[in-house]
Amino acid sequence: MENKRKPYQLVSREWKKEDTVISLKNTTIGGNNVCLIAGPCAVENEDQIFTICEFLSKKNIKLLRGGAYKPRTSPYSFQGLKKDGLILMRQAADKYGMGVVTEVMETNLVDEVYQYADILQVGTRNMQNYQLLRALSKIDKPILLKRGMSSTLEEWLLAAEYILSGGNEKVILCERGIRTFETATRNTLDLSIIPLVKALSHLPIIADPSQGTGIRELVTPMSMAAIVAGADGIMVEVHNHPEEALSDGPQSLYFDQFAHLMEKVEQSAHFNNRAVDYAVDSRLVY
Amino acid sequence: MENKRKPYQLVSREWKKEDTVISLKNTTIGGNNVCLIAGPCAVENEDQIFTICEFLSKKNIKLLRGGAYKPRTSPYSFQGLKKDGLILMRQAADKYGMGVVTEVMETNLVDEVYQYADILQVGTRNMQNYQLLRALSKIDKPILLKRGMSSTLEEWLLAAEYILSGGNEKVILCERGIRTFETATRNTLDLSIIPLVKALSHLPIIADPSQGTGIRELVTPMSMAAIVAGADGIMVEVHNHPEEALSDGPQSLYFDQFAHLMEKVEQSAHFNNRAVDYAVDSRLVY
Amino acid sequence: MENKRKPYQLVSREWKKEDTVISLKNTTIGGNNVCLIAGPCAVENEDQIFTICEFLSKKNIKLLRGGAYKPRTSPYSFQGLKKDGLILMRQAADKYGMGVVTEVMETNLVDEVYQYADILQVGTRNMQNYQLLRALSKIDKPILLKRGMSSTLEEWLLAAEYILSGGNEKVILCERGIRTFETATRNTLDLSIIPLVKALSHLPIIADPSQGTGIRELVTPMSMAAIVAGADGIMVEVHNHPEEALSDGPQSLYFDQFAHLMEKVEQSAHFNNRAVDYAVDSRLVY
Amino acid sequence: MENKRKPYQLVSREWKKEDTVISLKNTTIGGNNVCLIAGPCAVENEDQIFTICEFLSKKNIKLLRGGAYKPRTSPYSFQGLKKDGLILMRQAADKYGMGVVTEVMETNLVDEVYQYADILQVGTRNMQNYQLLRALSKIDKPILLKRGMSSTLEEWLLAAEYILSGGNEKVILCERGIRTFETATRNTLDLSIIPLVKALSHLPIIADPSQGTGIRELVTPMSMAAIVAGADGIMVEVHNHPEEALSDGPQSLYFDQFAHLMEKVEQSAHFNNRAVDYAVDSRLVY
Repeated sequence: MENKRKPYQLVSREWKKEDTVISLKNTTIGGNNVCLIAGPCAVENEDQIFTICEFLSKKNIKLLRGGAYKPRTSPYSFQGLKKDGLILMRQAADKYGMGVVTEVMETNLVDEVYQYADILQVGTRNMQNYQLLRALSKIDKPILLKRGMSSTLEEWLLAAEYILSGGNEKVILCERGIRTFETATRNTLDLSIIPLVKALSHLPIIADPSQGTGIRELVTPMSMAAIVAGADGIMVEVHNHPEEALSDGPQSLYFDQFAHLMEKVEQSAHFNNRAVDYAVDSRLVY
Repeated sequence: MENKRKPYQLVSREWKKEDTVISLKNTTIGGNNVCLIAGPCAVENEDQIFTICEFLSKKNIKLLRGGAYKPRTSPYSFQGLKKDGLILMRQAADKYGMGVVTEVMETNLVDEVYQYADILQVGTRNMQNYQLLRALSKIDKPILLKRGMSSTLEEWLLAAEYILSGGNEKVILCERGIRTFETATRNTLDLSIIPLVKALSHLPIIADPSQGTGIRELVTPMSMAAIVAGADGIMVEVHNHPEEALSDGPQSLYFDQFAHLMEKVEQSAHFNNRAVDYAVDSRLVY
Repeated sequence: MENKRKPYQLVSREWKKEDTVISLKNTTIGGNNVCLIAGPCAVENEDQIFTICEFLSKKNIKLLRGGAYKPRTSPYSFQGLKKDGLILMRQAADKYGMGVVTEVMETNLVDEVYQYADILQVGTRNMQNYQLLRALSKIDKPILLKRGMSSTLEEWLLAAEYILSGGNEKVILCERGIRTFETATRNTLDLSIIPLVKALSHLPIIADPSQGTGIRELVTPMSMAAIVAGADGIMVEVHNHPEEALSDGPQSLYFDQFAHLMEKVEQSAHFNNRAVDYAVDSRLVY
Repeated sequence: MENKRKPYQLVSREWKKEDTVISLKNTTIGGNNVCLIAGPCAVENEDQIFTICEFLSKKNIKLLRGGAYKPRTSPYSFQGLKKDGLILMRQAADKYGMGVVTEVMETNLVDEVYQYADILQVGTRNMQNYQLLRALSKIDKPILLKRGMSSTLEEWLLAAEYILSGGNEKVILCERGIRTFETATRNTLDLSIIPLVKALSHLPIIADPSQGTGIRELVTPMSMAAIVAGADGIMVEVHNHPEEALSDGPQSLYFDQFAHLMEKVEQSAHFNNRAVDYAVDSRLVY
């Protein structure tokens, strides 16, 4: 790969040779572990989030995803339960020993989300919300930085540079598909970026095949492909009743599909000489 | 044009037949007037902004654009003078009787920017920053809503719907180019969207050919084309020393180029049976 | 505009300073004239093509467009009347004193199409069909070279270079929209390319707002915009019964819309200090 | 996946449930076999093609790729050895017991290329060259149909439908990357399309990570990802002296990289419960 002068520094392999590994209470992201973050698109009500969380914890999944504040294209769509959603996620996660991954939509909400989340997510629409990135650079929890839907690799790494340069080195990149002319899939999941990021940066990178494809049948094969290409983990949407989901139903997995996904993710991780943190016989020791 | 059910309502022609015209202290946007908003990409220092503002006011330009808070791809690039920049713009604009158009990058800054600006601009990276849109829906000053660089027409109109549905009907749309595979121009200025917006919505729409093309030689022809296609105005970058500009130099007009642009904008407006607010012999009376 | 080394030569302004003007029996393309090429998407039957041709000739239009060999996405769609279509077009055009512009889809057909056409069109899907370009570089009739739907400016000029370097200097470029993520219009008409082509090349360039937008209501405003941006002409689809057209009905103009278009094209040409060849009081003398 | 009415028929799973398997003299494409097609971008001279072919045959590779007629963006670039290239490829392939895969650029050349090739390739620029597709529908050799660089899945399947509807059922689809805004890679390899094609069509589909990424370091991880996602094979560029290649050097593998690729492709195939035809201990029996 060409060796031209890079506009970023702290995120680069030249700056730090070894992979960044991010430690959480109950798992790690990066290094030998291939993580699996799962949950509904949005927290909808107590029953829904507890049911899903219980299911996931029985499967030994460590990280629960779910939206409390939802960025929706239309002002008339369901906007999330907001603070109530955060509280419900936290309660469910605490009951079942899981960590919480949830989106923070703006600077004003950083304190509130910080209180309930273990990992704060920056959504695709906010990847270049530089005030938000600066605010997140000042906290001590990990940031999951989704790629902007029309962001180049360089812009993405520079967005991460905003966070690192402010003092927070715990950044997890997340490829979630880019916007192209193709409409057969919701976005075009750009898996080539994964080995390229691995070559250019020490940061962990995961993939979101639910957002990336928008079609639940494609989630498992694309998860496998992402891991084999070098991804440090997968983030997927799962729902107890996908057909009744308030958002993103068509890309949410049914419970039985999720069990199948887990098996394939674990096999793919082992194929790539890595392990998963949910395996009963995991080779990982924390 | 097809008559399928639209997901937006308040911004639509069905909701309001007549064009929305936005009144400011010294001019109007929409209606018979084709406005010309001009100024530097960023406020750099007192001398720069006063020099440019004086030049523009002598040309009878009513609205000064300029960035105080700048969203920059790299954390190491000039980030704007921030509040100092706002103060300088306000002072210059007041001295020369102009209005101020400047970007507000997040909810936290709405109060501050509101204090100094006559029109608050939402940049392309924030078009889907829904918290910001909601905050701007509660103020009584006009909002210049730039199209997201990868936003569809529908997403853009829905972003405007966020502002109108919160109570602020003073929204000006601004086409500033979309991101495509073509790299000969900085963005692809999508002029077809102008008559399409005019058919679907009552809101005024202007074009930004500086951002749209990234090449100063293209600014005048594309301004003319935009007006002839129905745009309610043009927003351009002009600088006293483009070659020394701290940002966007290659797309900033020289003063003499700006004078030529004005002439062509006025002719194009008249060609389209409209007038400009800067003309000595303007047919507009305020 | 930057002065980097160009990969093309014969098509460049550096190679030839003055505009290339292409002479036909009854008109010219380039120079002072803004041409208007019109006709149906496809020749469908004798009645249709003679009716349209008669209408256009009464309006003093000089060039009839129409597809005989049609590149269709599906093998089950109407594929054109082929040679019969060419013959019908030629007969209609001869009866009414017009020139014929029609697409040639491959090398094998160059001789046949050459026999009936005055201008041979290369479609968007064939812009990089280099065998075809080479074959067309050996004939003495003008070539209308449409931009590939995902071609950069440089690739397009290099496609023209294929034709010029083989000996045929009569190339007319035609911007017909590029493929982007936006689906509100059929393609994204890239008008910025027009003044850019004019700066970089001596070749005439026209625009096709029918293909470019896919919506008949947008054809007139985008024609005006293209001419004001510097286009040397417009190519549009018109049909006696658009709602019954075998292809591209929604973007075909009705006869009365076409009359309105003509007026606006002429006004736009005059606005840009140019003339149209169909005007009764044309300033052009052939 | 949604069940809307498809515009194609013969290529669909509804039409034919079982996978199409294409038999060649020395191997098969589709079914249990994951094929590996390899060779230089272009045949450059006798020494080059014989050296590469000998290397590949020693590795037990069954299919040699190489361009004799090359579609080049510039008329001044190396255009391929043409018929001499075909002859050299055939001689090398015959000497070492391999099959030949090479591009046919137009109808006129179908007979000539047919004479020397075992599989005729349609390049990305010709995916919608319908005359060529029709000509290829009348021959009895397999067609490798590359996806157009801006073609949707539906357009691609309809291009295949052209070939099947004319009578040739031996079509192999090849995903080679689409054109997007991202310039970090040469194209954006769209791997999600692979499981989607598998669901919608019975045709075999392979991936070309050399064209898809343009960066040799990405070829192996993307080959692995493609196979795990369900691809029936991989097509890669390999060269004895990549740094001296007349075209596509940066994406061509060195011989030692190719050996590593083979190992990873075989492991990936086995991981997906499939086999490779080059393995000494292949589970495939022909």
